[in-house]
Amino acid sequence: MMQRRILERLAAGEIGIEEAEAELAFSAVSAVEEFARLDPGRHGRKGVPEIVYAQGKSAEQLKMITAQLLEGSGRAMISGLSEADWQQLADSFPGKDTAGDGRSGVLVLAETNGKPPAAGGKVGILTAGTADIPVAEQARLMAEEMGCSVLTAYDVGVAGVHRLAGPLGDMVKADVRCIVVAAGMEGALPSVVAGLVRAPVIGLPTSTGYGLGGKGVTALLAMLQSCCPGLAVVNIDNGIGAGAMAALIANAACSD
Amino acid sequence: MMQRRILERLAAGEIGIEEAEAELAFSAVSAVEEFARLDPGRHGRKGVPEIVYAQGKSAEQLKMITAQLLEGSGRAMISGLSEADWQQLADSFPGKDTAGDGRSGVLVLAETNGKPPAAGGKVGILTAGTADIPVAEQARLMAEEMGCSVLTAYDVGVAGVHRLAGPLGDMVKADVRCIVVAAGMEGALPSVVAGLVRAPVIGLPTSTGYGLGGKGVTALLAMLQSCCPGLAVVNIDNGIGAGAMAALIANAACSD
Amino acid sequence: MMQRRILERLAAGEIGIEEAEAELAFSAVSAVEEFARLDPGRHGRKGVPEIVYAQGKSAEQLKMITAQLLEGSGRAMISGLSEADWQQLADSFPGKDTAGDGRSGVLVLAETNGKPPAAGGKVGILTAGTADIPVAEQARLMAEEMGCSVLTAYDVGVAGVHRLAGPLGDMVKADVRCIVVAAGMEGALPSVVAGLVRAPVIGLPTSTGYGLGGKGVTALLAMLQSCCPGLAVVNIDNGIGAGAMAALIANAACSD
Amino acid sequence: MMQRRILERLAAGEIGIEEAEAELAFSAVSAVEEFARLDPGRHGRKGVPEIVYAQGKSAEQLKMITAQLLEGSGRAMISGLSEADWQQLADSFPGKDTAGDGRSGVLVLAETNGKPPAAGGKVGILTAGTADIPVAEQARLMAEEMGCSVLTAYDVGVAGVHRLAGPLGDMVKADVRCIVVAAGMEGALPSVVAGLVRAPVIGLPTSTGYGLGGKGVTALLAMLQSCCPGLAVVNIDNGIGAGAMAALIANAACSD
Amino acid sequence: MMQRRILERLAAGEIGIEEAEAELAFSAVSAVEEFARLDPGRHGRKGVPEIVYAQGKSAEQLKMITAQLLEGSGRAMISGLSEADWQQLADSFPGKDTAGDGRSGVLVLAETNGKPPAAGGKVGILTAGTADIPVAEQARLMAEEMGCSVLTAYDVGVAGVHRLAGPLGDMVKADVRCIVVAAGMEGALPSVVAGLVRAPVIGLPTSTGYGLGGKGVTALLAMLQSCCPGLAVVNIDNGIGAGAMAALIANAACSD
Amino acid sequence: MMQRRILERLAAGEIGIEEAEAELAFSAVSAVEEFARLDPGRHGRKGVPEIVYAQGKSAEQLKMITAQLLEGSGRAMISGLSEADWQQLADSFPGKDTAGDGRSGVLVLAETNGKPPAAGGKVGILTAGTADIPVAEQARLMAEEMGCSVLTAYDVGVAGVHRLAGPLGDMVKADVRCIVVAAGMEGALPSVVAGLVRAPVIGLPTSTGYGLGGKGVTALLAMLQSCCPGLAVVNIDNGIGAGAMAALIANAACSD
Amino acid sequence: MMQRRILERLAAGEIGIEEAEAELAFSAVSAVEEFARLDPGRHGRKGVPEIVYAQGKSAEQLKMITAQLLEGSGRAMISGLSEADWQQLADSFPGKDTAGDGRSGVLVLAETNGKPPAAGGKVGILTAGTADIPVAEQARLMAEEMGCSVLTAYDVGVAGVHRLAGPLGDMVKADVRCIVVAAGMEGALPSVVAGLVRAPVIGLPTSTGYGLGGKGVTALLAMLQSCCPGLAVVNIDNGIGAGAMAALIANAACSD
Amino acid sequence: MMQRRILERLAAGEIGIEEAEAELAFSAVSAVEEFARLDPGRHGRKGVPEIVYAQGKSAEQLKMITAQLLEGSGRAMISGLSEADWQQLADSFPGKDTAGDGRSGVLVLAETNGKPPAAGGKVGILTAGTADIPVAEQARLMAEEMGCSVLTAYDVGVAGVHRLAGPLGDMVKADVRCIVVAAGMEGALPSVVAGLVRAPVIGLPTSTGYGLGGKGVTALLAMLQSCCPGLAVVNIDNGIGAGAMAALIANAACSD
Repeated sequence: MMQRRILERLAAGEIGIEEAEAELAFSAVSAVEEFARLDPGRHGRKGVPEIVYAQGKSAEQLKMITAQLLEGSGRAMISGLSEADWQQLADSFPGKDTAGDGRSGVLVLAETNGKPPAAGGKVGILTAGTADIPVAEQARLMAEEMGCSVLTAYDVGVAGVHRLAGPLGDMVKADVRCIVVAAGMEGALPSVVAGLVRAPVIGLPTSTGYGLGGKGVTALLAMLQSCCPGLAVVNIDNGIGAGAMAALIANAACSD
Repeated sequence: MMQRRILERLAAGEIGIEEAEAELAFSAVSAVEEFARLDPGRHGRKGVPEIVYAQGKSAEQLKMITAQLLEGSGRAMISGLSEADWQQLADSFPGKDTAGDGRSGVLVLAETNGKPPAAGGKVGILTAGTADIPVAEQARLMAEEMGCSVLTAYDVGVAGVHRLAGPLGDMVKADVRCIVVAAGMEGALPSVVAGLVRAPVIGLPTSTGYGLGGKGVTALLAMLQSCCPGLAVVNIDNGIGAGAMAALIANAACSD
Repeated sequence: MMQRRILERLAAGEIGIEEAEAELAFSAVSAVEEFARLDPGRHGRKGVPEIVYAQGKSAEQLKMITAQLLEGSGRAMISGLSEADWQQLADSFPGKDTAGDGRSGVLVLAETNGKPPAAGGKVGILTAGTADIPVAEQARLMAEEMGCSVLTAYDVGVAGVHRLAGPLGDMVKADVRCIVVAAGMEGALPSVVAGLVRAPVIGLPTSTGYGLGGKGVTALLAMLQSCCPGLAVVNIDNGIGAGAMAALIANAACSD
Repeated sequence: MMQRRILERLAAGEIGIEEAEAELAFSAVSAVEEFARLDPGRHGRKGVPEIVYAQGKSAEQLKMITAQLLEGSGRAMISGLSEADWQQLADSFPGKDTAGDGRSGVLVLAETNGKPPAAGGKVGILTAGTADIPVAEQARLMAEEMGCSVLTAYDVGVAGVHRLAGPLGDMVKADVRCIVVAAGMEGALPSVVAGLVRAPVIGLPTSTGYGLGGKGVTALLAMLQSCCPGLAVVNIDNGIGAGAMAALIANAACSD
Repeated sequence: MMQRRILERLAAGEIGIEEAEAELAFSAVSAVEEFARLDPGRHGRKGVPEIVYAQGKSAEQLKMITAQLLEGSGRAMISGLSEADWQQLADSFPGKDTAGDGRSGVLVLAETNGKPPAAGGKVGILTAGTADIPVAEQARLMAEEMGCSVLTAYDVGVAGVHRLAGPLGDMVKADVRCIVVAAGMEGALPSVVAGLVRAPVIGLPTSTGYGLGGKGVTALLAMLQSCCPGLAVVNIDNGIGAGAMAALIANAACSD
Repeated sequence: MMQRRILERLAAGEIGIEEAEAELAFSAVSAVEEFARLDPGRHGRKGVPEIVYAQGKSAEQLKMITAQLLEGSGRAMISGLSEADWQQLADSFPGKDTAGDGRSGVLVLAETNGKPPAAGGKVGILTAGTADIPVAEQARLMAEEMGCSVLTAYDVGVAGVHRLAGPLGDMVKADVRCIVVAAGMEGALPSVVAGLVRAPVIGLPTSTGYGLGGKGVTALLAMLQSCCPGLAVVNIDNGIGAGAMAALIANAACSD
Repeated sequence: MMQRRILERLAAGEIGIEEAEAELAFSAVSAVEEFARLDPGRHGRKGVPEIVYAQGKSAEQLKMITAQLLEGSGRAMISGLSEADWQQLADSFPGKDTAGDGRSGVLVLAETNGKPPAAGGKVGILTAGTADIPVAEQARLMAEEMGCSVLTAYDVGVAGVHRLAGPLGDMVKADVRCIVVAAGMEGALPSVVAGLVRAPVIGLPTSTGYGLGGKGVTALLAMLQSCCPGLAVVNIDNGIGAGAMAALIANAACSD
Repeated sequence: MMQRRILERLAAGEIGIEEAEAELAFSAVSAVEEFARLDPGRHGRKGVPEIVYAQGKSAEQLKMITAQLLEGSGRAMISGLSEADWQQLADSFPGKDTAGDGRSGVLVLAETNGKPPAAGGKVGILTAGTADIPVAEQARLMAEEMGCSVLTAYDVGVAGVHRLAGPLGDMVKADVRCIVVAAGMEGALPSVVAGLVRAPVIGLPTSTGYGLGGKGVTALLAMLQSCCPGLAVVNIDNGIGAGAMAALIANAACSD
């Protein structure tokens, strides 16, 4: 702690009051900065990764930041990559473990055999249709990077709910503590799931759908209008946000 | 046919070409008007009632029109009435049979024992919640006025689909030929029903719901975005329109 | 029926109560699944095809699914194809009958001489303008695939209603039981048609129109606001949905 | 002309250059003001009345302004009045001729037997339904106040176009030079009229309609999306604006 | 007149009543069609051209329709062409007079020396900025094709009104009978013009502007909200519609 | 288990196969219903109360349902009450403990000394301003009804973040496991909180704010657009939903 | 400064390092709070009043807060009052100077003869119409409370710009350093003013206007789309915000 | 002054009254034009550059206008350039000083060593994230072109406010008189800054953000809804407008 050293030096007579005051004036800003991380210990212990959002950054910049992150923590996670940029960035770091793919736009790089430390949380991820999978994959990668084990069941049903019974039962049995449900179009699946299970559900609208209310707008609105308690939502296609929220919830449920 | 008589009189020399021509000029407009009712015979046989929409009409006007309709056909149907106007109008015609109530805003008046002739169609009407009932009642009254028998099951489930199984099974067994499904909020029920049964479904969004996408907007959008074939929609709170559409479909399915 | 066999084996002493119970536990989920198809017999008899929606699927995946469908039922219907994908997919199955075209994005493949069994329904399809034809063709292909005979009259009039008289009269004479009316821009044609005929009308807004309320939004809203009973709508450009709804209605009207 | 007198006085040596300059500096602003009324002579001759918009003015203020106008020109026109304010204002000027009514919110007051001078223009005004009449009346009163003769035909048809034939034919025969068409809901009537006649049509959307696209929004959008040439629109419920535009057009067509 | 010949043949005994009736039945539809052109004589005399809207038509179709129109009336007008299509279509008819350009998307083709007959109307067209010119050119070409003489003044001022004084004064002096004012962004110019002159103004919003309310939406709304009488609007970028409306108004003002 | 008894009776020869089959047919629907409550045991243990939503129910109905709930579980929770209805309903049950108030529209009734069993979860609730308090109170009452202990800090700052430091620090020290942050206007507080602490945050937009983006719309959008991980949202004014979600999360974090 | 005293006591041996550290830990939060008022000296000198926003506060609460403010600084400013609340609150403090009125919803109370100290800034305030005056008055009261002298010119012109010349010239001559321009409807006046003068302009949209884009939405959008540099806007009806911004700008321009 | 010369020549007898009058008639329009620049002297002195907006102009036109500006004033500023057009235009003027870059779309060209004369104003520019930099650069270039010195601090924090302390303190110390704050997504930073400092803040929303409320819409709305006095906004991505407004404010604060 910066302050302690100032105080010790003052108490030891190494510096005078004015000098101590000046140094503490500087530490006031530091205090503000520290304030911003009220619980730095938990931060390190639980492993919320720093996510690099690729949009608006050049390939060169992305490569540099990624290299820095890899050097610092042995891991790097980049989101929002186009398929071409994904490949190019992955190729820039040969010999590393990679996760993610170009369709989800998420790339995770890690030193060989480097896995994020398990945090104990169990998360379930469901998608209504096939088109929702890339966004759901963002959530999976994020939750895994935060040390969760993740059960996924994709394309469990758009036009009918009957395909849902099996995979949802499995998740309940596995005691997942939060379920992310990705859906586009009319976005009904998160409500249905929240009506059936007790785990909190994160509604993840995806930008599918056409005509009036298309591109995920209806899906988002339907999740906001849902009559089922135990459902909260993130913005359209925000798989990273859904995964982070679910992992925080699931890890907290398992870490105490 | 007006034209035939003109022609007969011309052929008989009773009138000249100019006179025939002038009369036929007038009949051109008639032709336009007739064109508007390509099938007047079916109209009478199937009994689509003339609906009086109360909004923007004075109590006095409504009473006059209602009296006219009663005199003409023995029946009158008025929609869009406030609760107070409903009672006042009903009270103006003592000794008649009435149907409807102030909450649905629909009043049906008929000579005692006067029932609309049965048209053979069977219609089912479901609501997701309690708040959807007044709008669903509009649909029921309209379908009954068009000679359908109507099965209703209200409040079958908002937060879960399991209450749906029984009533929907009954409707399938009763061989209803069209199902109106009224729902507000996230409006998921019509999709669920259309995914389970083969009868065409009319989605009837109701003006419930709050915040973003409230007042039925999300319900309408969700029905438009539905992935299930066999679902078409009417505007928010248009129970009369839903009932008329369902009755046309159901009666056609039974009259041949 | 799975349950019967379990019961018979229990009654015959082939299995014990625990074993029967375990098998039935599994059949509970099956029950849920069966529940989703209350009338599987009608499904087969009436021929609602399984539609593959191409969007979000790779060319390889589409080819595989199509091959599977062809093998299973001798027919396959794919919608949402780009013009290039349409051609590529059609070329992958030489020697088959094809229907549809790249502009509508619908491809129907069938064994030579394979026609969907006639279901008896007669459907009419109208478009206001030329730009509405590709979406109307989706409806036609869907209705034909469901065994309907379809009468079409395209470009019957945008700026005037007089071109409508002939084709609409033909449809009334042919006793079509449902009319799909595709229109963009101000979307007035479905209302006009519903005001003239007694067959239920499915309004099909198309994504034409420009400026404020363009891309089909005004067309959809105008159909929702229509004062004419006997009109229900589907979302913008949802020709498949309009065709399926119309075919269900028309087939029901003819099969009893 | 102010400038001429300045120049004459300068040329006559009555004033010096500085004085002339100062006076012309003031006349620069006058020039701006004159610029704003490029054709003041036509203004008086054609009789566009000064309209007082009641909203946001107290009863006392309205009475004062009205008295002023009456004194000045023998006429006064006030729009935007509530029904109560209409009556109160009319009662404040006993012995005057009045036109308008509380539902349209327009009050015209004139010295007995005082009529606006005929300007020669003939305007037609149509409404689709009954609810459109108060807004159409605004247009009628405005056009009459501008010296037009006005033909009206109200409630000519919402659910069918056949009631339109007679009144529209009358207007064509009477050689109206502009037709205002008021419509709410789906707002199709102005397009239909513009498709049938050659007179320019002013689309006047009214704030009727419900649910999505209600309160005149769909009507306005449909008129903007219309495929028929010869149609321009004003904002929802702007009957005064529609009447003024129509009168300008019709008077111009007749005054040369 | 078809009917007269039928009647004459009946009166002459050439055909019987049944035959006359059948022929008249066919003429009922004709009557409907005729009804749609209440004043065909004026149509020919005033010369509203048939406009071909290119969008949704293939190059081959456009060429065919254009050839047909040229053969029929010696003139053809096509709108909505891309720059490439404009050139290709123009090149397909060597030796003809052309008007329009690729940026406005309008092509007028005429036999050499073929001009539309003058109809007497004078129309003014103003634009606020440079970006509004292509849409204004649509209006100019349309008005000229309808026989009007057109005064244009483009880019008269977006950020200030002072550049407006000269050109507007010229239009007033030239006695234009309708002014089209094209503007994007905040769309204030039409209001300003309508406040200054007595000729009716057609507001033509153009799809310029960015951020919230961009692409012409604010311009359109501002014209609808204008406090100035004598202003009506068409949809964003609808130069053809604005030109047609202005020409109808101006020609009517000059033809009597 | 219903099935076991059927099987036992079949194995014992008490019933035949047909009878067993018929009884199981009925149990298929039961299976569906059971499926809907995959974990009924947890339901009772964790105490999610049945919430009665008052809107659309008469005072009489509300009283009846409340009496039923009180009789069944000794507790009743009603939301969506107007201030007058709140008082009337509370007065109908003298001698009971009450919680909530008319401004939040939530009434909790319980037998004297009846408290919901503690579930262990700790929830924090913050509001940006004073106007957000009634909605935050909904969340508090819901979370308490689900057995949570709740820390609240209201009006911690709209125009500046410095008032936030103290109360947020207290919540972190108390180890709350989920924080509900209610905010209207620009809705920035939930993002700020999610950026400072590690507990998952539920954004609760309230219907404050005026002009463009008012009534909570901007607040909701800002929460959806937030860059901070660990934030999910519910619809505007949905305090009940926010409280339920927070309690599920917090209870899960403490019950293991 | 708290820290200095801690340091002095540590240097003097009055407290030990641990104690100093603990006290400084507490002062870290204080640092955050201080950070929030980087320049408290300027705050007092320039006199930005604390504004109480009445909405959501009871009459009793308002009276208490007002009394507190009056006691503290001799002045109190409350905004957002209804007309009735304005009078009631004013009457609660007899013998004080008041400013503002019920239509603007702003009440300023001050000890007799108490004026805010002059800050030197000169602000101009213009309104397009009469309906904009109450919102403009909010701006005037706020700017005066911040020590500005304010020139106002209301109703300078909606349908024409010529009435603007005089008052605007006066403001330029008086050397106002910021001009607030309030306008509703099409909101063109702020652009016109910003195009004419060099002082920065604050656009203040007011909630006037009707139909599509009404209630100030078009006015706001038009100000955002303006092509004139030197214009920034606040939200609809936010007169307080416009006045504060203008006073900050004008005072800064005069205080150095 | 044109008028003075006319008057002098008249007073000197060089011209007659008619001639003087004619010349002044022409000068009336000039008066209008002058009126538009009430303070041309300040214009020159303060140096608001003429900005050329590239959109809708050809490369050739841009080159010509740029050459003209360079010749006239030794400087030229062009905005709205694509990256390719930026380079091409810059390359067309070898040997000139350039500022700006292709990402901001702004190009400033000046004779070597040509700097805009210092106007004394100090402006601060902050961005929340990296993606906001190109728009912020527009503001910087504009303010510098108007003679301001500009302090920038980019990417000071999206997910937390702690990175803000340092740079904001620097700006306060440097006595900047206006701060432009560019932010996308939830757009909270301008409110935070306006809550901390006394300098007026110009909110500059940028078109970042995704899903509902994306592309800068939420950022703009949040700035409009801000509770902090001293904040006004420009439209999304309008860096030029923000820079001009800030420079006007800052220069005024320093020039007196």
